[in-house]
Amino acid sequence: MNLIQELYTRIEDANLWEKNLVLKRNEYLKVAGTTDTHVYFIVSGSIKISIVHEYEDHIIRFGYQNNFITALDSFITERPSDLFMQAIKKCELKVLSKSTFVNFLHSRIENKELWDRVTESLILQQLEREKDILISSPKERFDRVLKRSPQLFQEIPHKYIASYLRMTPETLSRLQKS
Amino acid sequence: MNLIQELYTRIEDANLWEKNLVLKRNEYLKVAGTTDTHVYFIVSGSIKISIVHEYEDHIIRFGYQNNFITALDSFITERPSDLFMQAIKKCELKVLSKSTFVNFLHSRIENKELWDRVTESLILQQLEREKDILISSPKERFDRVLKRSPQLFQEIPHKYIASYLRMTPETLSRLQKS
Repeated sequence: MNLIQELYTRIEDANLWEKNLVLKRNEYLKVAGTTDTHVYFIVSGSIKISIVHEYEDHIIRFGYQNNFITALDSFITERPSDLFMQAIKKCELKVLSKSTFVNFLHSRIENKELWDRVTESLILQQLEREKDILISSPKERFDRVLKRSPQLFQEIPHKYIASYLRMTPETLSRLQKS
Repeated sequence: MNLIQELYTRIEDANLWEKNLVLKRNEYLKVAGTTDTHVYFIVSGSIKISIVHEYEDHIIRFGYQNNFITALDSFITERPSDLFMQAIKKCELKVLSKSTFVNFLHSRIENKELWDRVTESLILQQLEREKDILISSPKERFDRVLKRSPQLFQEIPHKYIASYLRMTPETLSRLQKS
């Protein structure tokens, strides 16, 4: 069982989910300027996280089916952040408040240890993402991400992958055919 | 006392430093392909962390005087990483092995709680850095970083700041005069 499955199972076993949420395609879960400290588990569907700068949507993360997603900056600081979270397709989510989640972490040392490993993995992912952005060759960015996140190419429409990879949809199509 | 001072003081009070290290200007602390799991405290001097891609040095972090620095990916995974760490000027460092550091964290719950706050702060910094890189306007990147890290402009030579901000030294000079 991987870290994410393990975390999900423990929350499920403790019966902690506070509500279910259904998002229509393109519906926003969070917009810039708001505070959202919830932890979401994506039962089905997928979500994109982006910042908007000069009218352009820069996608920085995706949330996949059977994965957790949160507005990490708001979750940590409990303050408004400039992140948008939007459903790419119809989504079913399970929702947990930060306070319930924090209580869960502190209820058993094993939960906190598991979360520490998730946090380490997050830090490593952020470093890989930073390297991706710094690499100027579209081909190399594509290859790195294909190797790291095959799920991306199965679940996410191409126009969003192109935004995430900082290339035009045409360049992405060309790389996928090559 | 801020998080970093607090962490330093606790390590100092527990008398945990294992050795001192002096680096000459431009000397490497770590090169790509090696594993370094040490935690360093910079008593004096400054360090740059970079990845080299197609013969170009991309600076991703700076270590300032009175701050900690580590090759975060190697530290977490205990495996080789592609990061370089190099002294910008003569540096005096205090050195701690990962095992000593981990023992320190687990010796008192307060130490682990402090480290959790440092980790949260790291995650937020990484997110801000990712936004910096995504913003295409050099002026805006400059303004964001100037606001967030005034220390950068006091301690680091301009050619390295330009690399970190992904602009030419000429563009940086123009922005600093404006």
